[in-house]
This record gives sequence, structure tokens and C-alpha cells, in this order.
Amino acid sequence: MIRVSIIGSGNVAQHLIVAFNKTTDIELVQVFVRNGAAVAHLINPDKIYNNFNDIIAADLFIVAVTDDAITEVSAAIPFSNELVVHTSGSVSISAIDNKNRQGVFYPLQTLSKSKEVDFKSIPICIETKNEKDFQILEKVAKSISNIVYKINSEQRKALHIAAVFVCNFVNHLYQIGNDICIENDLPFDILKPLIQETANKILTLQPNQAQTGPAKRKDIKTINAHLSFLSDENQKEIYKMLTKSIIDNGKKL
Amino acid sequence: MIRVSIIGSGNVAQHLIVAFNKTTDIELVQVFVRNGAAVAHLINPDKIYNNFNDIIAADLFIVAVTDDAITEVSAAIPFSNELVVHTSGSVSISAIDNKNRQGVFYPLQTLSKSKEVDFKSIPICIETKNEKDFQILEKVAKSISNIVYKINSEQRKALHIAAVFVCNFVNHLYQIGNDICIENDLPFDILKPLIQETANKILTLQPNQAQTGPAKRKDIKTINAHLSFLSDENQKEIYKMLTKSIIDNGKKL
Repeated sequence: MIRVSIIGSGNVAQHLIVAFNKTTDIELVQVFVRNGAAVAHLINPDKIYNNFNDIIAADLFIVAVTDDAITEVSAAIPFSNELVVHTSGSVSISAIDNKNRQGVFYPLQTLSKSKEVDFKSIPICIETKNEKDFQILEKVAKSISNIVYKINSEQRKALHIAAVFVCNFVNHLYQIGNDICIENDLPFDILKPLIQETANKILTLQPNQAQTGPAKRKDIKTINAHLSFLSDENQKEIYKMLTKSIIDNGKKL
Repeated sequence: MIRVSIIGSGNVAQHLIVAFNKTTDIELVQVFVRNGAAVAHLINPDKIYNNFNDIIAADLFIVAVTDDAITEVSAAIPFSNELVVHTSGSVSISAIDNKNRQGVFYPLQTLSKSKEVDFKSIPICIETKNEKDFQILEKVAKSISNIVYKINSEQRKALHIAAVFVCNFVNHLYQIGNDICIENDLPFDILKPLIQETANKILTLQPNQAQTGPAKRKDIKTINAHLSFLSDENQKEIYKMLTKSIIDNGKKL
């Protein structure tokens, strides 16, 4: 059994606690939280602490805090030569204070506190400085997920940017679709099957094969009709830019 | 049994043929195609014709052709006072030549020839000029789909634009994610669980509740690091514009 300690109480920390609670391969020994209330419903109160003087030994310390706090928090751990990892997509492995053995444990998923996820299908991207630590981290990752990748810091940065495009920006386009529906007295529900199918298509087709719509067809008449219809300047600019990008992409193929 | 005739052989026509073949409520009497080969695998060759002199009677004629051809093709039908509908999201009901009874039968979905779809879960948006025709169209729609909406031409235009945002533009963001993966020696597969979860989240959360990422957090440091990393000017511009839109949207809430 691998003894894991979590430092942090945000989205990622909370989802990790839930995932570790489900596996017998991991003993979740402690969770550090500034405000115990955030995780009180997820773990035995005896395991919650808010002063690093109360920290106990573990095989792995997972620092699940905001990107900016990783260096400071990892430096505050009153141990050295332990395996300490962060969970960020965009921060280098070197952000972990180097008095400990550095690593990264990055679950590539969009986590909202109010939405449960099945960790088994979440890719976990891991990185360490040596092979022995890699094996520990791999065991922990495989105990909660079926998909584990070895990804270095530079690749992880690229991956995080790609994730911003396919998740954060995509969700914002859902938001715009929602806004257009509301403005025109249409239920957003009507778009949901389309949203699902758009996401499902790329399981079997490459995105360029799956592309449809007026920009793909270079249907300038429809594009202009849409631009005339849109009154929100921001929506109009996004429409123009993405339409141009699809048309230009077609020229490259 | 309602007798339906399809005019056209593109994506929508082909998917409709497959859907009508599956229901006993509809008799698909004929399909007009310029080039019979396109649908020869989907229907008895006796029902395929390419000269309007060979057209036979039906309760409903579905003109599934490109937007620009709707008026011309509907005018070429050598009947009058029949129910004739088009399948376009962006064209008014009036585009159907008014010698016949006009209507619209718009399946709101992204249809690619190479990808089968379950028509039962595709919303069909219908519009007619009178109640009797509405009842016919509703019966036909319900014979192949569980989701049928009455949508007028102005709403349908808005809906089509919203669909461009949540489907065509979303797929283009998948394309960009794919490009970033390829450039950085990462498998696109690693993004697929994230893409699925992003689409699934809005089944239970409003898009603004589901929003995550650096723009939502106003994490300027990460945003700037991403912009420095991106070398493709087009990707950079899209990143900037959508980030600004998410930040501005946060201010409105």
C-alpha cells in the first residue's frame, strides 16, 4: 500500500480525495487544508491538519494548490528527500522546491466541484527526475486511472494549451450558443444532441474529416447572412476569426 | 402510411433515406438524384430517377439540396399545391416556390457521410404555413426522431448560427488541439476524454458554471506563458480573442 498525502483543498485536491478513497492500493494518510470545512465531508477529520508542524510521513506528497503557490507551499514542507509532486498543467517540474524529489502528477480533465467525474477515464500525465520515483508515481496513477502517460514539462505545457482550446474555449462557444438561444427565445436543450455528436465524431474521425458548416463549404452567402444577423460585436468578431481560420485551414490541406 | 419523396442525394438526403428505411410509418416512394450512384446502395434502383418527368405523387416532397438550389429545384417540381419542404437551417420557408404548400424540415445535426447517426436523438425543427401541413410534417418527423420542435424561420436562423458556434467552430478548436499535439509529439487521443467530459458537463451544468481554465481564473501569468509558447500567429490570435471574451463574460455575470 502506498501512503499518499495531499496538500490543498481545491477542485483537484477534492477529486483526488474521492478517487483515492475508492482504491485499496492507496492509503490517504493526511490532507492539509487552510480551511478544514472544504473537505470535511470527504475524509475523516483526524486526517485533516492546517499546520505543517502536524505533518506525518508518506511515500508521496501531492501539492494540489494554485500554480503560483506551488513553490512556496512545496518549500514549506518540513521534510527533505521526499517525493513531492504538483498537479499543474502549465508549471515546470522545477517549481517544486528541490530539497525534495520533484515530480508532476497532472490529471488532464476539466474538474468542477459540483460535477462528479470517473477518474478511471482521466489521463494522468506523470513526470519525475528518476526512474524509481517514476515507478511510485505510475503505481499511484494506475490505482485511480486506466490512462497514464509519461509527459515531460515542455510537452505538458503544449498539452495544457491544447486543452485550453478543446475544453475552456469550447465551453465558451457553448456559452455563446446558449446566449444566442436565450436572445431568440430558443431552449439551449435543442443544441445538446449536436454538442454531444460533435464531441463523439472525433472519436472515429480526424477533426478535419469531421468539419462541416458554411466556412468548410466556403458558403460566403450564408456566412454574410450570419454576420448581418449577429448584433453582438464580440460574437461577430469571434465568428469572423474562426470562419477565416477554417477557410485558411482548408487551403493548407 | 405517409408517402415521402426525397429530392437530392447529399449528406442530409442520404441520412434521411437511412432513417426512413427504418420506420414502417413512412413509405419512401422516390429519390431524385442527378447521379444515381450516390444513393444506389441505400434504396431500390426502381425508386431512383433523374428527370422530373418521371416524378410520381407523394404526400411530402423533401428538397434536400444546397441552400442556393432550393428555389430553383422547388420550382422545377411539375406539381402544384403539394407539400414541399426544404432541410436548411439558414434559408427562409419562402424560398420554396409558392406554387406548392411551403414548409421546412430541418434536422439540427452535424452529418458526415462516413459517420452513421441515430436519428432518434436528432432534433427536427419544422415549420409550415398552415396547421394541416404542420400535422403531416410532425408525423413524419416523429416517425424518425424523438425530438421535434416548431421553429419559425427567424428563430431557425438564430439556431443555425448558434449551431455554427457549438459545432463547426468547436470542431475547428479540436482541429487546433490536434495540430498542437502533432507539433509537440503528443497523441491527440490524450485529449479525447477531456473533449467528451467538456461536452457532457453542459448536460447538467450551465456553460457559465462549467467554465474552467486560466481565462476564467484571470490567471494572467499562465495566459502570457501560453501566448509566448504559441508560435502560430493564427492560433495566438484565436487564443487572445477567446480569452478576452471569457474574461469580459465574467465581468457581465
